[in-house]
Amino acid sequence: MTLSDLTGRVNDLLCAANLLTWDARTQMPPAGAQTRGQQIATLKGLARELILSEEMRRACDKALVSTDGEDDDTPSRAEALAVSAAIAHHSRLPARLLQAQAECAPMAQAAWAEARARSDFRLFLPWLERTVMLAREQAECLGYAGHPYDAMISIFEPGETTASLAVLFDRLRAGLRPILAAARRADQPRSDFLFREYPEARQRAFAEDLAMRLGYDFSRGRLDTAVHPFEVSFTRQDVRITTRFNRNYLAASIFGTAHEVGHALYEQGIATEYTRTAHATDLIGLYAVGGTSFGAHESQSRLIEMHVARDPVFWQHHFPRLAGHFPEQLADVTAAEFAAAITRTHPGLIRVEADELSYDLHIMLRVEIEKALMDGSLRPADVPEAWNAAMARDLGLAVPDDAQGCLQDVHWSSGYIGSFPTYTIGNVMAAQVMDELRSTVPGLSSDLEAGSLDSLHAALSTHIWRYGRSLSRDRVLRRLTGRPLDPEPYLAHLAHRYALTFAIQG
Amino acid sequence: MTLSDLTGRVNDLLCAANLLTWDARTQMPPAGAQTRGQQIATLKGLARELILSEEMRRACDKALVSTDGEDDDTPSRAEALAVSAAIAHHSRLPARLLQAQAECAPMAQAAWAEARARSDFRLFLPWLERTVMLAREQAECLGYAGHPYDAMISIFEPGETTASLAVLFDRLRAGLRPILAAARRADQPRSDFLFREYPEARQRAFAEDLAMRLGYDFSRGRLDTAVHPFEVSFTRQDVRITTRFNRNYLAASIFGTAHEVGHALYEQGIATEYTRTAHATDLIGLYAVGGTSFGAHESQSRLIEMHVARDPVFWQHHFPRLAGHFPEQLADVTAAEFAAAITRTHPGLIRVEADELSYDLHIMLRVEIEKALMDGSLRPADVPEAWNAAMARDLGLAVPDDAQGCLQDVHWSSGYIGSFPTYTIGNVMAAQVMDELRSTVPGLSSDLEAGSLDSLHAALSTHIWRYGRSLSRDRVLRRLTGRPLDPEPYLAHLAHRYALTFAIQG
Repeated sequence: MTLSDLTGRVNDLLCAANLLTWDARTQMPPAGAQTRGQQIATLKGLARELILSEEMRRACDKALVSTDGEDDDTPSRAEALAVSAAIAHHSRLPARLLQAQAECAPMAQAAWAEARARSDFRLFLPWLERTVMLAREQAECLGYAGHPYDAMISIFEPGETTASLAVLFDRLRAGLRPILAAARRADQPRSDFLFREYPEARQRAFAEDLAMRLGYDFSRGRLDTAVHPFEVSFTRQDVRITTRFNRNYLAASIFGTAHEVGHALYEQGIATEYTRTAHATDLIGLYAVGGTSFGAHESQSRLIEMHVARDPVFWQHHFPRLAGHFPEQLADVTAAEFAAAITRTHPGLIRVEADELSYDLHIMLRVEIEKALMDGSLRPADVPEAWNAAMARDLGLAVPDDAQGCLQDVHWSSGYIGSFPTYTIGNVMAAQVMDELRSTVPGLSSDLEAGSLDSLHAALSTHIWRYGRSLSRDRVLRRLTGRPLDPEPYLAHLAHRYALTFAIQG
Repeated sequence: MTLSDLTGRVNDLLCAANLLTWDARTQMPPAGAQTRGQQIATLKGLARELILSEEMRRACDKALVSTDGEDDDTPSRAEALAVSAAIAHHSRLPARLLQAQAECAPMAQAAWAEARARSDFRLFLPWLERTVMLAREQAECLGYAGHPYDAMISIFEPGETTASLAVLFDRLRAGLRPILAAARRADQPRSDFLFREYPEARQRAFAEDLAMRLGYDFSRGRLDTAVHPFEVSFTRQDVRITTRFNRNYLAASIFGTAHEVGHALYEQGIATEYTRTAHATDLIGLYAVGGTSFGAHESQSRLIEMHVARDPVFWQHHFPRLAGHFPEQLADVTAAEFAAAITRTHPGLIRVEADELSYDLHIMLRVEIEKALMDGSLRPADVPEAWNAAMARDLGLAVPDDAQGCLQDVHWSSGYIGSFPTYTIGNVMAAQVMDELRSTVPGLSSDLEAGSLDSLHAALSTHIWRYGRSLSRDRVLRRLTGRPLDPEPYLAHLAHRYALTFAIQG
């Protein structure tokens, strides 16, 4: 078999694993959970075995030789390099460690769920200690140049390090401070109408309409309900999204849907010829996905959510349609009032409910703690104290209990350490891409003002989506914008948006 | 890894393949079909590779030695023998043949669909010729003692042969003849009310209620809609059924649901300790299933459909509930009239619409043709003529076109030759089991008359369901009834049922 045949089989296995996950979260009867985890583990384990097989190693070596001298950006060279990196990665992790992590995760998750329900950190502590110990062992196996946290970050966001993030985050903190301070001083816009009663069926009808208008192709996907919304794909031919409906908060389903549509456009937009290839497969994370990194993926979801669907211009065109779905609930609301309401700031304790201005502070807090756990400068037992101190320092908030503090996120209990930075990278990249496209693509801004996303879709497809994983995130950004990740457009976007919101209010 | 670990992984792969199939038929967006077939093929191909792996062979040899001297019925011996038979089976089939069959099937199915739509057999003929040629090659690879058709039958119904079926079918034909003749002479009961307008939502509500009352455990399953209803499982923890709703024919969803519930009870009823074992995996057919053969599986669906849900006693208890769902449609109907209507006979051209009395004649016609195709005494080009002649001879019907004749079934275009006999084996076994249980299980018949299925469920669980595939169909039957497959109880059941129906009418 050729390298492409071999990676095609890995993609098939991981697409199947994705479907088992989608089904578990949207369709599966409760008792199915008992055997589903093992089924997914077997599929991923076999994918890893195929990557480490003699046949794959031989095909990879051959491809490395035959593409030697090609630019790393050519699809064939990129494929050989991706497979080679995956073989190296998986070779370094002993089966014993993977087994220990696989056994730890479900028990850690159960303990975390109980700890959060009772707001009792002590119930989770032994499992956090074990998760951190295994992550530190994993970092030692994988190796790193600077800091053990680097090994974890690189799984989710190749190219980023503890040091590169420190530079990024320092600039963000400094830039966010005056915008946040101004936001706190300003009167907040009216938002009472968002909390009226919105029947689920009509929210669903609007969400489907919205997804379609944002460019989601329903002939290659579907929209379901899930407790924690997500997007998942089984090749570009079948890319599914989920959302949730809160009867008394209209914004949840609208912006949750827009966010997942952003992820889905990336997956639906990968070039057809990359179907079932390494360019549509995370061979290190063992996940069928076309986005080139977690951060790049988040950039597309945040671009659609924040730069399209939360743009006041968008609601000039779509508010009448929304009001048509909810004529009683929105009878006393204008498009401008709606746009202002969805931009109000309200720093709170919970990350997933955070507004655009404070979201990154939640992320930076977690990254600070993860880094300290990885180098041993923070003991797991001291996480609540560190969390609460950082929350007081960064957001000026007192944490009343650990359920609303360090127990709020599922990530650590799932064994994920190192994924949080990608949320902020996504925010930064979204603004950088949008800023570049607005200034270089003729007609893009005027099309958006006229209510058309066609120019935007075409530009994102040309510069980002179609490449899949064949170009790294850094290469995508450099090709498009001429420079690496840069926080300035993001800070400028926030300053502009919140100045605008206050102006409307004022 | 132990033999159980290794077969557990095979089961995981095949459960995943089952989920991909379920999803394709109930949830998948249209465009997903383009990559789904390859994903399922990869999962089944890897399952086959695992079965043929050195590790599996060694573990199997070891298990054969360590269980040597044990009765073939012990779970550990049965596991070793099942794996050994699967290794032998798959070893005999060259990759080249499997590849040719895998490539033929989708094209044959597309050609068949078009041929049926246009009622033009010539469009399908080249693909039928290729399918038959490949099946004959497969039979030569697998080997057989008597007739090449034996090799195909044994994939679906181990133990049966062309010769054993000839004996069974001769007896059935002889026994059915007088019952059919009497049925044709009799006046048919009134059935007009079955064809009134029955809104789908209310049919669904009744189908769910019916499934639950028939014993289906919704905490380990779900009921969806599909064009061709089926049951499928991903371990006993998750056994799903589908049905279809015909707005103008009430019986379709009721008895379709009852039929699939019968299949599902078998899968939900396998012993917990057989989860993820060879006893819940068809290692030859590469299919995750707990039923011990296709015929045994069909026996449970037909038992619930024909001996429970079409029994007039059942409707004494459940007709008021049905009439409660459809008060207008059934206002002028009694429970006895309903029971008679669902037993009316009406020999027709289409197998899937056939009544209980003529169904087996449809099967025997197909088996006669499959046998002749396999030994070369019938050329594929002559199938329409042979079909139409047999239909005139057995059912006295003229076939107006091939769409209603030899193009009506999907089986041959899918590469399935040899599965048809299992429908009749299911009918025969269902009656034999039911007859035995009625005469030997104290209280079973009176419980059924009182509207309780508890004794029946307990007996089926004890004698059939819990064993999964650890006992062959023949052993299940011999242990329970003391004899092999025997058509007499089936003929007695039909004679009794139709005499009763005519008596009601008379």
